[in-house]
Amino acid sequence: MARFITLTTDFGVSDYYVGAMKGVIYNINPSATVVDISHSVQSYDLLDGALTIAQAYSYWPKDTIHVVVVDPGVGTSRRPILVSAGTHFFVAPDNGVLSLVYDREERITARHITSSHYFVQPVSQTFHGRDVFAPVAAWMSKGVEPIKFGEAVDDYLRFAAPRAKAGEGNEVRGIVLKVDKFGSLITNLMPADVGGIFGGEFQIKVGNATVTKLLSNYAEGAKGEAFAIIGSGGFIEISVNRGSAAQAAQANKGSEVVVKFG
Amino acid sequence: MARFITLTTDFGVSDYYVGAMKGVIYNINPSATVVDISHSVQSYDLLDGALTIAQAYSYWPKDTIHVVVVDPGVGTSRRPILVSAGTHFFVAPDNGVLSLVYDREERITARHITSSHYFVQPVSQTFHGRDVFAPVAAWMSKGVEPIKFGEAVDDYLRFAAPRAKAGEGNEVRGIVLKVDKFGSLITNLMPADVGGIFGGEFQIKVGNATVTKLLSNYAEGAKGEAFAIIGSGGFIEISVNRGSAAQAAQANKGSEVVVKFG
Amino acid sequence: MARFITLTTDFGVSDYYVGAMKGVIYNINPSATVVDISHSVQSYDLLDGALTIAQAYSYWPKDTIHVVVVDPGVGTSRRPILVSAGTHFFVAPDNGVLSLVYDREERITARHITSSHYFVQPVSQTFHGRDVFAPVAAWMSKGVEPIKFGEAVDDYLRFAAPRAKAGEGNEVRGIVLKVDKFGSLITNLMPADVGGIFGGEFQIKVGNATVTKLLSNYAEGAKGEAFAIIGSGGFIEISVNRGSAAQAAQANKGSEVVVKFG
Repeated sequence: MARFITLTTDFGVSDYYVGAMKGVIYNINPSATVVDISHSVQSYDLLDGALTIAQAYSYWPKDTIHVVVVDPGVGTSRRPILVSAGTHFFVAPDNGVLSLVYDREERITARHITSSHYFVQPVSQTFHGRDVFAPVAAWMSKGVEPIKFGEAVDDYLRFAAPRAKAGEGNEVRGIVLKVDKFGSLITNLMPADVGGIFGGEFQIKVGNATVTKLLSNYAEGAKGEAFAIIGSGGFIEISVNRGSAAQAAQANKGSEVVVKFG
Repeated sequence: MARFITLTTDFGVSDYYVGAMKGVIYNINPSATVVDISHSVQSYDLLDGALTIAQAYSYWPKDTIHVVVVDPGVGTSRRPILVSAGTHFFVAPDNGVLSLVYDREERITARHITSSHYFVQPVSQTFHGRDVFAPVAAWMSKGVEPIKFGEAVDDYLRFAAPRAKAGEGNEVRGIVLKVDKFGSLITNLMPADVGGIFGGEFQIKVGNATVTKLLSNYAEGAKGEAFAIIGSGGFIEISVNRGSAAQAAQANKGSEVVVKFG
Repeated sequence: MARFITLTTDFGVSDYYVGAMKGVIYNINPSATVVDISHSVQSYDLLDGALTIAQAYSYWPKDTIHVVVVDPGVGTSRRPILVSAGTHFFVAPDNGVLSLVYDREERITARHITSSHYFVQPVSQTFHGRDVFAPVAAWMSKGVEPIKFGEAVDDYLRFAAPRAKAGEGNEVRGIVLKVDKFGSLITNLMPADVGGIFGGEFQIKVGNATVTKLLSNYAEGAKGEAFAIIGSGGFIEISVNRGSAAQAAQANKGSEVVVKFG
């Protein structure tokens, strides 16, 4: 039986929102263990939420229930869904925030959550994290079968993450998906997209920085020098040893990344 | 027996303060479950703390012990109190930070905590969160009866939250209590204060915005348009769809809100 | 048997890093209780990490395992270590981040963690928090003996925290170690360093403030007045009642603190 419930939201931690969600869960299932992944997803940013959960969930025990609430459409007809993907469960709005989980799993069953007797009543129009997603996760963690929450659907929303594009000549173009807490620029480029930087000469332009080195750890970087490295989430990162690449390169989320080989 | 202990403080999360409080609790009662409501209450701001706990506590299981520490008077003669309110317990300085809990509950018993053998010794003059409030909550969660901590008192401090005022003519005046993580302006106006905006014509001025629409969900808002909505905590909010009303209206905590009907 | 695992890192809470670490731990030991001390240690700042854990750990139950990851040298030859200090355990990179723990404990045994079968495979070069430190803590919490993780070493790295220095004449010089969430300036001066401020006349210069009062609680301070106080962590602090001393004094981390007596 599932026992762990993780939370990934854009609610921040300075309001009562997350505290209310946790109260709802523990009120239904005092034996659950509720753990934060992050509440600092950028407001309304589905891709940021998708990245955060997709990089974290697989480290959790099987049958963990991941509640993911980035939900600018709360109160509209967008559906709440309960997804079984591989050995994990997800409770989220059907707005694509699970897209990168879908990309990583083969066996996916999504259900439209319609059994409103599991919700906190009255259901608000503005906070389904508390009124819908938290209680559904809590009841699931108590052993309620997925099928009890609603019918399976095939047309769940799924967006494609921005992918590497071939540019002119020997170029590959990508973007910065995220700036992490250290100021590292997490790009959308995977090692397979830029095989040419392993062993050969290359040049990566991002912001006002030109990167020509691929290092295997941060400490090899010279003071203030921006370099490429394969990050822990599998993406090419631009980093600075004991510094902020975002600051060094004057780049940010969404900045273009251009890789030239040879 | 109570098992859940929640924490609401203005201590932030970048210092050792919260980590020490949790250690104190688990050292006394390893079976407790300690959960954060928020540590980002604005420094010294009793009303912000009062709002945060008042909006969160009722979702928690009965007998939860809520530790609320916004305590600019720490080390002075202000009393530490243990409050039983409805089906919940609260441990806090007696400075009014529980005022909005008192507003929501009928059966309230407050005790002046004087049994210093439950405190962490020596008691500092600057950190009663660690030395007084955390250990009292922990001992309570182990089953120590409220009466053991001190005598009941009737003169606990209670402040009135800023309320809606009738203005000139058809006006109601309020203020912004809080800006949430999304930039929504949480006002002190309840639906009953501004009944006229349901169905009729109205105008809300806040900062440099003029709001004339009441929407039932955020996504109905046009891009960049500020609108009114009933928030999940029961207050009228001014929001912007996928944006920040605080930024759009150039308004902030404390900004005046003027509602005109007709 | 140890059950509590605390986390102190510079990873922040807006990325997937902490969520992955907790998943790894619970996947190995679902019975562990993982609790955050802080993830807001300043990036790459070993002294800030050392201060945070040193001030928090002793409040925790005996046998708690404290994971401390401030690790700019991740992926280099710097060793991962498992330290038994007094009644607590610590898992950290061997870069000095435990120095202030070593200062407070007498019985210290450090082991070089080499048993890579306890690691998450493949081990990344950039995230040993997830791949090395979290799983080692989790296996320890399940009862694996320290000796199983590697050989004892005596040459673990240890730096001296900046100490008070005698200045010219009746002076003592220190620095600001940290600005806390309230804006209090936490200095490196202990009461023993500045005995002369108890009872006698003194002057403390920090930033553009001149402090001449030692108060025993914050609320005694006049509006906007900076004063000295003995903080909860044992250091002399410069504070302002319901205000920010950092702002009032225009001082910050690293600012010089000069104390003159008489």
